[in-house]
Amino acid sequence: MRKSNVFTEEAVELFVNGKKMITFMCTPENLDEMALGYLYSRGIIECVDEFMGAAPCSSGKRIFAIVSKKLKDEVYSIKNIVMSGCGSGELPKELDFYKRDIRSGYRVEMGNIKETFGEMLESARLHQTTGGTHSAAIKDNEGRVIVREDIGRHNAVDKVIGAALLEGMNLERSTVVITGRVSSDMVVKAAGAGVPVVASMRITSNMAIEIANKYKVNLIGRIGSNEPLIYNEVEGTYIER
Amino acid sequence: MRKSNVFTEEAVELFVNGKKMITFMCTPENLDEMALGYLYSRGIIECVDEFMGAAPCSSGKRIFAIVSKKLKDEVYSIKNIVMSGCGSGELPKELDFYKRDIRSGYRVEMGNIKETFGEMLESARLHQTTGGTHSAAIKDNEGRVIVREDIGRHNAVDKVIGAALLEGMNLERSTVVITGRVSSDMVVKAAGAGVPVVASMRITSNMAIEIANKYKVNLIGRIGSNEPLIYNEVEGTYIER
Repeated sequence: MRKSNVFTEEAVELFVNGKKMITFMCTPENLDEMALGYLYSRGIIECVDEFMGAAPCSSGKRIFAIVSKKLKDEVYSIKNIVMSGCGSGELPKELDFYKRDIRSGYRVEMGNIKETFGEMLESARLHQTTGGTHSAAIKDNEGRVIVREDIGRHNAVDKVIGAALLEGMNLERSTVVITGRVSSDMVVKAAGAGVPVVASMRITSNMAIEIANKYKVNLIGRIGSNEPLIYNEVEGTYIER
Repeated sequence: MRKSNVFTEEAVELFVNGKKMITFMCTPENLDEMALGYLYSRGIIECVDEFMGAAPCSSGKRIFAIVSKKLKDEVYSIKNIVMSGCGSGELPKELDFYKRDIRSGYRVEMGNIKETFGEMLESARLHQTTGGTHSAAIKDNEGRVIVREDIGRHNAVDKVIGAALLEGMNLERSTVVITGRVSSDMVVKAAGAGVPVVASMRITSNMAIEIANKYKVNLIGRIGSNEPLIYNEVEGTYIER
């Protein structure tokens, strides 16, 4: 495939119930999924039924999402942060995280996660052509896999979460695999969406491990290598080697 | 060198003249330089003389910077953004950028930039041990080179800018080289600091090119390859092949 020399970056404003919430610097595709994933992992909506839908305006620079409940003013404003990762604008210590309850008992085999990683790389079209994007995949315990890409790690994760919800996947019984490193903000996002396992091609930060222990997210690093790292094992989730 | 399996991530709050400005999710070293680079590239201070100094508190989780002028309230608040890049929290279209005037006439040879790239990789200690960090280098027209690392691309650039200012480098006659891709926010930062050339190991976004043309920043991609990409050539700066 011919390498592209430029990647597409667009400022897309998310309006929720008619009011501006946030601007994503993103790869402008799968925007409805991104909106849903964002709203869900931040806990702004509690279940997918509260998401009435989202549609981009004709220019593609705004996305209008409608949710079935009245939102408080404070969800429209988040703190000023310079994130280490491709940023969500959210900071662990300054925000009350949204943490979804994860019922225990999820079992997943390492081989299965490695397979998901392979499937992700295989279908990462933008990455193959630009080398400048991140990919995220989600696989549920029925073996369904969804892969999404974006120039931002966060956006890619929002997209797979949104897509998985629209597909009716059970996030409590799923694993998210990402290309980028796992900084604290990625764990916050997984915990917010109720995803019990996050595996990365890269490594993880000390702060990510700390938060993962607290919020019962399992972290795996170097998933593409022969010896993936299991950073922590939290009660109720079983990573089978 | 032994590979590390975890990278260090810390939430460091920047207080300027006693008031909280922003939180960096960063690699907690060279914090004074990061503070200075941040304040300068955002135009919060106009020259290095206005920076009286910065010191971390004993826990290392706060850095207190003092500047010689009274700051307006609005510089303590920026908009809510999900950045594509390792985020600055700033969005091109929603903020008035700070743009430093760059006097024309800077000449730099491609070979020189490639050399800087090599020097950067060679001294990127964290990258060599974790594989999970970004590096930035700055080289001035006297051949001085400074290399800094951070888990965030932005922080790495803030650090080299701050370090270069403390060294007395002339940023108008300098080139910044980075490992990460160039999204719009990186160009905004270079323009704000008055750096005329940004070269990356990776590629550049459409939006970055648009902003670079407007603010007269030269963008170079794939600097590590045999055929680096010159994305644009702006009046007054000469990239000699």
